[in-house]
Amino acid sequence: MPKASKRRTRWSQASVEGRAPAFPGPIWGLTILGSLSLNLVTIALLASLYEGHGLLGCEAGSSGFVAEPEKAVLIAPPQSSAEEVEMVSAEEISVSSTAGSRPTSKDAIINLDHGDPTVYEAFWKRIGERGDIVFPGWQSMSYFSDASNLCWFLEPEFAHQVRRLHSLVGNAVVDDGRFIIVGTGSTQLFQAALYALSPPDAAEPMNVVSAIPYYSSYPTVTDYLRSGLYRWAGDASTFEGDAYIEFVCSPNNPDGSIREAVLSSKNGKTIHDLAYYWPQYTPITGAADHDIMLFTVSKSTGHAGARLGWALVKDKDVAKRMTKFIELNTIGVSKDSQLRVAKILKVVSDGHELPGNKHRLFEYGRRLMSVRWRKLRAAVKASGIFSLPEFQSSLCRFTGEETETYPAFAWLKCEKEGVEDCESFLRNHKLLTRSGRHFGVEAKYVRISLLDRDETFDLFIQRLLSLR
Amino acid sequence: MPKASKRRTRWSQASVEGRAPAFPGPIWGLTILGSLSLNLVTIALLASLYEGHGLLGCEAGSSGFVAEPEKAVLIAPPQSSAEEVEMVSAEEISVSSTAGSRPTSKDAIINLDHGDPTVYEAFWKRIGERGDIVFPGWQSMSYFSDASNLCWFLEPEFAHQVRRLHSLVGNAVVDDGRFIIVGTGSTQLFQAALYALSPPDAAEPMNVVSAIPYYSSYPTVTDYLRSGLYRWAGDASTFEGDAYIEFVCSPNNPDGSIREAVLSSKNGKTIHDLAYYWPQYTPITGAADHDIMLFTVSKSTGHAGARLGWALVKDKDVAKRMTKFIELNTIGVSKDSQLRVAKILKVVSDGHELPGNKHRLFEYGRRLMSVRWRKLRAAVKASGIFSLPEFQSSLCRFTGEETETYPAFAWLKCEKEGVEDCESFLRNHKLLTRSGRHFGVEAKYVRISLLDRDETFDLFIQRLLSLR
Repeated sequence: MPKASKRRTRWSQASVEGRAPAFPGPIWGLTILGSLSLNLVTIALLASLYEGHGLLGCEAGSSGFVAEPEKAVLIAPPQSSAEEVEMVSAEEISVSSTAGSRPTSKDAIINLDHGDPTVYEAFWKRIGERGDIVFPGWQSMSYFSDASNLCWFLEPEFAHQVRRLHSLVGNAVVDDGRFIIVGTGSTQLFQAALYALSPPDAAEPMNVVSAIPYYSSYPTVTDYLRSGLYRWAGDASTFEGDAYIEFVCSPNNPDGSIREAVLSSKNGKTIHDLAYYWPQYTPITGAADHDIMLFTVSKSTGHAGARLGWALVKDKDVAKRMTKFIELNTIGVSKDSQLRVAKILKVVSDGHELPGNKHRLFEYGRRLMSVRWRKLRAAVKASGIFSLPEFQSSLCRFTGEETETYPAFAWLKCEKEGVEDCESFLRNHKLLTRSGRHFGVEAKYVRISLLDRDETFDLFIQRLLSLR
Repeated sequence: MPKASKRRTRWSQASVEGRAPAFPGPIWGLTILGSLSLNLVTIALLASLYEGHGLLGCEAGSSGFVAEPEKAVLIAPPQSSAEEVEMVSAEEISVSSTAGSRPTSKDAIINLDHGDPTVYEAFWKRIGERGDIVFPGWQSMSYFSDASNLCWFLEPEFAHQVRRLHSLVGNAVVDDGRFIIVGTGSTQLFQAALYALSPPDAAEPMNVVSAIPYYSSYPTVTDYLRSGLYRWAGDASTFEGDAYIEFVCSPNNPDGSIREAVLSSKNGKTIHDLAYYWPQYTPITGAADHDIMLFTVSKSTGHAGARLGWALVKDKDVAKRMTKFIELNTIGVSKDSQLRVAKILKVVSDGHELPGNKHRLFEYGRRLMSVRWRKLRAAVKASGIFSLPEFQSSLCRFTGEETETYPAFAWLKCEKEGVEDCESFLRNHKLLTRSGRHFGVEAKYVRISLLDRDETFDLFIQRLLSLR
């Protein structure tokens, strides 16, 4: 992957006129304070309204997947405005009852908090029977898939299709004897990697870091069990120390930037989360070749309900320890999902490799994402109160063309005067997003999923256009 | 369930003549020491032979699933012989390459270390197409199953079939608004329950206990992440303290006894692991009605490869916290497995409910287990060097008949003179079992799976008969 840091991301400012000055004076301070108080009251009111999974059922905050219940997580100070430092409370984190559903009217709540990849449903419906798989009742009864493999619960056909797909796309080195470890989604693999990289008998837990804005799950998944093996230590950019584990997500969730590790030390370890390093989201600039690389079907083919991910691991002992974690955590990984996803990956590879096949997932995804980003940028420009990151285009070795970056999420900054909490502002307009606070930065930012179904995406664009 | 404690289990001694005296003298001490040293040398030799997943590939100890790598677990002192206290090393724990495979000859290694339930394969093959399920490529793409449900990743059809099956069998109260939480096997649900029952902000971790002999996974699953929320505190029978979480497994893994909690305190909590409370293993004496009850398809229908379990939970807040754990741990549970198992459970209920249906899983399982236990008891008697627990028969409300107990595991005690380590003794005869040490008791005991395929079970019986 190309040399680039998270700082490469430039901010589109053309459409932004009413931005707050960089260093607010006393009047601005008072305004912000007033606005924050108002937001708190609004949130409290909404929380009481929404409690108990009612029809509007988004519990206060509603930024699910990502937090530690009843235990506050200290978010690292954002770099630009110290007054934004605050605790992200567990109370405001949960799955809203609108999650995964289709908005029922033009004015309905639009829930784009999660990266639910239902955008791919239409593709798989077009595929028809070729995507089907039949399970006989007697199949996959044993715990074991191949006990002669280091990862004894890895289905050989799944491993084969993973290697085949990486070879086709060219996004990761896979044919040099590196180990494949299957996981119940990449979330389980994060934890397996932390377990594998942390010394089992150290007096102090290993520090786990990632550069802001970091994926909102990293802090919570690291800390929810208060492990003595590892602990969340915040922003990698400000970390001082020699021993650490750094999460490097590239393209980055939430902001889409191409990243490399920001720390470097012989006692440091990295985990590369490459969930979005697929041709529909970003140019494939080369085969990634890191020690631990994580992938997931949720974001590559869209089968989030299968809860399936995989790790490519160089070191045998690390691969063994990751396997041991999954053995202890869940005694392996659903064979049903492994076999089903093996079929799905086969259909994807066949689609691109066999002549005359019109169903090419990455072409489909790329075209769709480019249309969505064009609509999104137009709406953001028209609104005049938001901004988005800009990206450089690169040569994609998979398509052979100079291509742009179309991240799975919009990392939206609210530039409207007096609005410091973009998530609350959008929530007041029945648009559920995830606050920048969960990613270690100011509440002016939100992450918005661009992977929902067409009708939901179009409603979202209309909603954005209605905001001034 | 009936009032009974683990101490109810009586030991069959009819066939045992050459037992060691209860209090060994100095000569016995030397003999034991010599025997232990010899075993150590043998194990070391075997370890070097077997290393690297070779053809004989069972790594030293080979008692997979159950231990914390590279971290020693102190086993509570066994009640009868203090000199047996020892560390269960992580090095000797792993999945052997013979796991899940069929022995290739009469003299081959027979691996009965795990409770791999392949015995049920034959039943599901007879069922034929009725057990099939087809997954279209576009199905189950969303993370969410029903976001209006507290357990938002629970497939409604799976929940329906779980309730239906419990109502049919009568083994657990389910129709009183209690919550169903689905998990990636009951192993994930243990951890979800520990998380839910431990105070999130206590200064000291909660003590987790279970009466010996306890399921070998309880200590390792509790301690592998060195959580600040909970920690393993050993044998419940000798625990002194007020606040605790007690695992109650009934019928008990490994020894098949019917159990109740041994501790009682208003600050104590219990988790009832009812994996084996099904008619093929034990009389159904009533509908269990505990705060948290765990079940798994691995042991009820035999679909271990699906990695699917469920919890029945009374308290809403506990159910919420368990859901949160699974959200953080794996963002839900494979929908493919949930839907497939829903179909499997439907076939089981249909088999028992629809008139004229000849395929009744529990009848089949019960008949098969009774045959196996008859063969096993005959072989043990003929050998003269082993003993087994005895069980009382009871009225089974499901079958309406007085029935015996046929546990999924044989809890075998080696009574041969000079043999203190039964697992090593059997390993020397190419029979892989799990040592009593992993269950908190002496190495004279081993747990042996009775759930393997017919041919493997029959080879096992022949092997037993060859031992003197």
